Amino acid sequence: MRRWNGWGDTSVEMPLNQAALHFLAERLGSGHPAGEVTLESVSPKVTNSRLPAHPLVKTDAGARIIASLGQSLPDWLRMKYGEIGPVPDAVATPTSGEQVRQLLDYANTQQAVVIPYGGGTSVVGHLACPQGEKPVLCIDLSQLNQLTQLNPESRLATFGAGVVGPKLEEQLKAKGYTLGHFPQSFEYSTLGGWVVTRSSGQQSRKYGRIEQLFAGGKLEAPVGTIDIPTFPASSAGPDLREMIMGSEGRLGILTEATVRVTPLAEHESFHALFFPTWSAAEAAARELAQSTLPLSMLRLSNAVETETNLILAGHAKLIAWLNRYLGWRGCNEGKCLLMIGVTGPLVECRHALRSTRAISSKYGGVYIGTKLGDRWAQNRFRGPYLRNTLWQHGYAVDTVETAADWPRITPLMQAMEAAAHAAFAQHGEKVHAFTHLSHLYPQGSSVYSTFVYRVAPGGYAENLQRWKTFKQAVSEAIVKGGGTISHQHGVGKDHAPYLAAEKGPLGIGAIQTLAHYFDPQGMMNPGKLLGSVDVRFADRVSPGNGLEQGVERDE
Amino acid sequence: MRRWNGWGDTSVEMPLNQAALHFLAERLGSGHPAGEVTLESVSPKVTNSRLPAHPLVKTDAGARIIASLGQSLPDWLRMKYGEIGPVPDAVATPTSGEQVRQLLDYANTQQAVVIPYGGGTSVVGHLACPQGEKPVLCIDLSQLNQLTQLNPESRLATFGAGVVGPKLEEQLKAKGYTLGHFPQSFEYSTLGGWVVTRSSGQQSRKYGRIEQLFAGGKLEAPVGTIDIPTFPASSAGPDLREMIMGSEGRLGILTEATVRVTPLAEHESFHALFFPTWSAAEAAARELAQSTLPLSMLRLSNAVETETNLILAGHAKLIAWLNRYLGWRGCNEGKCLLMIGVTGPLVECRHALRSTRAISSKYGGVYIGTKLGDRWAQNRFRGPYLRNTLWQHGYAVDTVETAADWPRITPLMQAMEAAAHAAFAQHGEKVHAFTHLSHLYPQGSSVYSTFVYRVAPGGYAENLQRWKTFKQAVSEAIVKGGGTISHQHGVGKDHAPYLAAEKGPLGIGAIQTLAHYFDPQGMMNPGKLLGSVDVRFADRVSPGNGLEQGVERDE
Repeated sequence: MRRWNGWGDTSVEMPLNQAALHFLAERLGSGHPAGEVTLESVSPKVTNSRLPAHPLVKTDAGARIIASLGQSLPDWLRMKYGEIGPVPDAVATPTSGEQVRQLLDYANTQQAVVIPYGGGTSVVGHLACPQGEKPVLCIDLSQLNQLTQLNPESRLATFGAGVVGPKLEEQLKAKGYTLGHFPQSFEYSTLGGWVVTRSSGQQSRKYGRIEQLFAGGKLEAPVGTIDIPTFPASSAGPDLREMIMGSEGRLGILTEATVRVTPLAEHESFHALFFPTWSAAEAAARELAQSTLPLSMLRLSNAVETETNLILAGHAKLIAWLNRYLGWRGCNEGKCLLMIGVTGPLVECRHALRSTRAISSKYGGVYIGTKLGDRWAQNRFRGPYLRNTLWQHGYAVDTVETAADWPRITPLMQAMEAAAHAAFAQHGEKVHAFTHLSHLYPQGSSVYSTFVYRVAPGGYAENLQRWKTFKQAVSEAIVKGGGTISHQHGVGKDHAPYLAAEKGPLGIGAIQTLAHYFDPQGMMNPGKLLGSVDVRFADRVSPGNGLEQGVERDE
Repeated sequence: MRRWNGWGDTSVEMPLNQAALHFLAERLGSGHPAGEVTLESVSPKVTNSRLPAHPLVKTDAGARIIASLGQSLPDWLRMKYGEIGPVPDAVATPTSGEQVRQLLDYANTQQAVVIPYGGGTSVVGHLACPQGEKPVLCIDLSQLNQLTQLNPESRLATFGAGVVGPKLEEQLKAKGYTLGHFPQSFEYSTLGGWVVTRSSGQQSRKYGRIEQLFAGGKLEAPVGTIDIPTFPASSAGPDLREMIMGSEGRLGILTEATVRVTPLAEHESFHALFFPTWSAAEAAARELAQSTLPLSMLRLSNAVETETNLILAGHAKLIAWLNRYLGWRGCNEGKCLLMIGVTGPLVECRHALRSTRAISSKYGGVYIGTKLGDRWAQNRFRGPYLRNTLWQHGYAVDTVETAADWPRITPLMQAMEAAAHAAFAQHGEKVHAFTHLSHLYPQGSSVYSTFVYRVAPGGYAENLQRWKTFKQAVSEAIVKGGGTISHQHGVGKDHAPYLAAEKGPLGIGAIQTLAHYFDPQGMMNPGKLLGSVDVRFADRVSPGNGLEQGVERDE
């Protein structure tokens, strides 16, 4: 059964070994475990639904609470402390695109606003329920989950957009295919969610981001149904797919998606290399990312993440032996772990691995085989379970990510970590901050930082305030450092204030104009994507005052 | 010097050999050579400019005539017969983005409409001048042609958007880089033109379409300046680049573009293979397109194009010997030529070629080495010169192209050729029609058909009418066959009636809404992209009546 107030299935635990707990206590101090509340104890707080009965709609408190929760840190605080706040008035679970259409009509009649629900994995507040006069209908798309068409000749597969990762891959695997889209939220996130938030999977280097995989589909918008046909490519004007991707429910609800699939690979393996320093590791990773080698994954941890990962791995004796070996090969304190994946015909994988080792050698890289890679692959979707365990021990975890061009990467990583350290120092607290580059492009890379810190003893309000200070500090570091406000999580509510920094006021206006065209009443997911724009950032990108200069001005 | 009324430089001739002329005469009858007019004889027809003097603006007849001409067949007829029709009132040649801004303000003050001019290579009427009450200002971007920034670390290069292909590659080559974007119009078309028409180059398989190469840039729109920063990837909402790509001057003028460049390749070569039949060749080409092999080009000619190319090649004895050899290997009448390119590290090129030969063998493919490939590479931008020569001999040439998913490819190719045959048969004429697939994707392919027919003896009006009948017939075959109205030429004026068939009325509305937002007065390139929508096609894609069904209904 899925946890209502945490990540994943209740049957799955990811215990932390003693060494890891000791490591954290040393760095952050002992945790402050906070109590947990039950769904039953919270449910009575939910006010009566303002929506009338409808055959497709449920109004029980439990369903309404769960529909209001994603996996952002603010969501996490709401569920852990039982401070649920506003929830939708009703939850509908349509089983067809026609039913979605009916529900939009019902919502329109009721002057309700609509929040689409995929897998409830948003970490940026996509599901946050507005508190206002209008009733709120949540439309849960989980029943739109079937493979309805597979064309082997064109390698196109059509799914209901509510299908979650494992069910999608299982249906494809039965026919010998894969989509190859594996975000860390894979077990619960949905195809439609990936499309409307521009998601990226761990092997995006081989399979592409969702932008490359989404070939066409059907959107139910207040203004009508938009049916986008599939073409391998087209020069016939702006691409409608690109309006839907990243629209985050503001234009309508994606009910069906056709995606580009690939036959299952002959071979796949993951390999680990260590480098003596970050600068050597970054240079090697960039050379690999800019090469023509068919690597399916590149993932480079900085020194603190490398150290943390080795401690989390357990097997203290084995790790001690590894550290001795690496030291003997020149990788001591400050060493950085690069994980690579090869996926495809065996002959091409071999060539890629051989050449990767040759390139790495130039930078002092030490190849240690597939042991750590196998472990990573086994646990590739288990990372979020650690949030449950850490919370039990009194620690909170959040992640922030961006992407930027290569010259900005190292300064950006440093600025993000430094901003978090400074934000927690204000409260006399420490943060354990570490970073990896997990999507490497010829042009630049994503930068993904993890922050572990102690739960504040003062309860909900204090923890929320600390998070806000920290999140704002790191987000501002991203904007100033020339990064995008999100490489793979989307905008939602939490990133909306920073969007104008990269789109400019005219860009924001263009997206607002599109939203108004598809949704003239403004009933679709209000406040997300185009929420309140932070005026400080909007000012910095006024027309005729290029963004490039804007983001580089230090304020 | 550039030809004012034909393709290319006046110093370049592409003579046709006797065998080729004989071949055409046999198939089509003798040509009807039409006279040519001079620019001087046409200039007096040009009416006085309605625009007042401005330091950046020229109003001489010659410049205004040339600015109104692209390379579409209707443009070709206008210049060959001296039936120039409306021309812009003035032509400006700004040397900076600021001057473009000033010119937009000037045009706005004069209530003029603006047509951006890149290289004058549009084959779909992007430069057609509207005949109306408003004066028309053509803004020629050729002076925005400098490389202003090159960052080797992020492999990004920023250019003035008016730079033509050779000047762009020359500036990059001096630094050891290439963009790798080689459309057939390369010698005259511009970076900005590629972006706003979603162009594709001959080696798009390696370098990507312009969609993958365009990383950011600056657009001067009536509403203001839009400055798009570069990120390697982003999930922060809909992508502004995607609004500009394919906008065809409707939103504003792209003045600056930053593109993703690649170091010059270690090795490049082009190889030819023959297959006994179209179906064997198509199956082999599809397997190659869907493989992981790093081929930089795949280009498959159907039987008529193969035959035509061999005759055009001259060297009758050599070709006769080749035909005997191919016959002995099982490739006789109906054989099809597949050209492949390998570009990159030598070791990867060798692997790609070896594997390509192995896959081809399964389909009866015969590898004949690099001779034909070398010839193709030498003449890769010379094809359009043949239009000059053919016209001198009394033949017109036009090309029509689309892209579709694999299952539609062969029927679409057959339907396009059949539609042209039927259209000319109405006039008791024949057409020499042949086709290649030149951009092959895992999902499908582009389909590029060439049509050679006799110039009609009756002059301008008769020729224009014949072309309209033919163009409409082939365009309708594309729509019915499930292809996009353009894979690489854009929409312009000539494809605008068919756009609703793939965008749907709501999609057209969304693009119109964007155009209105960026250009509230409707001053930018009116009639292009969003010209008159053919109601028959708009009807077929009304909301709730999916396009998929629409295109498969046979009307």
